[in-house]
Amino acid sequence: MQLGVFSALLLLVAGGCSAQRPQPCRTPPLLQGKVTVSSQKLEFDMIGKYVYDAIGQRIRIGEIGHEKNQTFNQDFLLLFKEGVIFVIDEAKQTCEKQKLTGSFQPMQIPSDAKFWAQVVLGSLAGPGQGLLANSWIGEIPEDKAKYILSYTEFGCLPISSLYKAPQTDWILTTFFDIVLGIEDPGKLMVPDFCLDAAVETEKEGDFFSVFF
Amino acid sequence: MQLGVFSALLLLVAGGCSAQRPQPCRTPPLLQGKVTVSSQKLEFDMIGKYVYDAIGQRIRIGEIGHEKNQTFNQDFLLLFKEGVIFVIDEAKQTCEKQKLTGSFQPMQIPSDAKFWAQVVLGSLAGPGQGLLANSWIGEIPEDKAKYILSYTEFGCLPISSLYKAPQTDWILTTFFDIVLGIEDPGKLMVPDFCLDAAVETEKEGDFFSVFF
Repeated sequence: MQLGVFSALLLLVAGGCSAQRPQPCRTPPLLQGKVTVSSQKLEFDMIGKYVYDAIGQRIRIGEIGHEKNQTFNQDFLLLFKEGVIFVIDEAKQTCEKQKLTGSFQPMQIPSDAKFWAQVVLGSLAGPGQGLLANSWIGEIPEDKAKYILSYTEFGCLPISSLYKAPQTDWILTTFFDIVLGIEDPGKLMVPDFCLDAAVETEKEGDFFSVFF
Repeated sequence: MQLGVFSALLLLVAGGCSAQRPQPCRTPPLLQGKVTVSSQKLEFDMIGKYVYDAIGQRIRIGEIGHEKNQTFNQDFLLLFKEGVIFVIDEAKQTCEKQKLTGSFQPMQIPSDAKFWAQVVLGSLAGPGQGLLANSWIGEIPEDKAKYILSYTEFGCLPISSLYKAPQTDWILTTFFDIVLGIEDPGKLMVPDFCLDAAVETEKEGDFFSVFF
């Protein structure tokens, strides 16, 4: 009997341990937050505010930044299902419509990423002093690129991403101030003054062209 | 009477608001954790495990890393009050003793740093999903250097530091897995096999030379 209890406990502990190993996860589909992207080699840095809808495959992002000492300030609406990007100027009430190439990539840990490490940012010594995070590494063979992703253990929220392709140095993206849900769904709709914009066929963009 | 209550409330709210602005803070004096340091320009990256004693002004740090494709693996004990660094090889039971220049710099937000932003890493939407952090910017005129420090709002624990001097690019230091208190105080004592080591007068080090 005692041996039975011991075996059952052992199984429980073993099961608990294997279940504790983090699994690739997907971020909740509707949220908004802020992002920074920086690359020393490309002399680029920006800070942006985004609204993310993985169900409708829509992203709105307003950003300001510097590229080679030039300041920029841009506002994009990406509609992946329609395959278009709107470059919006709310102040001037003008719009540029571009073809959007590439498919929607949800915020997630890719299923082929390798679990690297679990870390505590700050400390779990006291309430509000720490954040449990998982880091994952992986490769994107078609870009000959490597990445390191850090996501929260609870909630599967992005914290940072490091990306390196042959033509770049490490590009650091940080995510912060995430709230779940979307405060103003209107931000994901095409503004009235954009409805008449024709696709400028000579311009194309993919998800990353809104960053660089 | 009602006006009196209203005024009191108003004062309370106003007082509360001004008190909410983060103030430069000092990290608890006895802790241990892990650290990474990376610089693309210097082709340097390392990960280390440290024990920090701001009362005795002692730091022990074991680190492994790469510099210009060379791997290194080092273990230092810094005693600021005595002005010495021990470079320890536990496996070989050997020791090098070097002169330590520079004074002890506690982990803290310098009093002349400027508050920059308060951010949430992850989200405060659910328990364990986010961490409230404050970022501070400042300059070190004697080094012509700039820095950005991010510390937890609660507990004043370091999360990351970015440092840029004219001869460097941005050097990123991240801190994680902090526990309060010191698990093994023996780590901060000079090992027996180091007691006979003579100071190698031709070598000097300061706090930063244990990183680079």
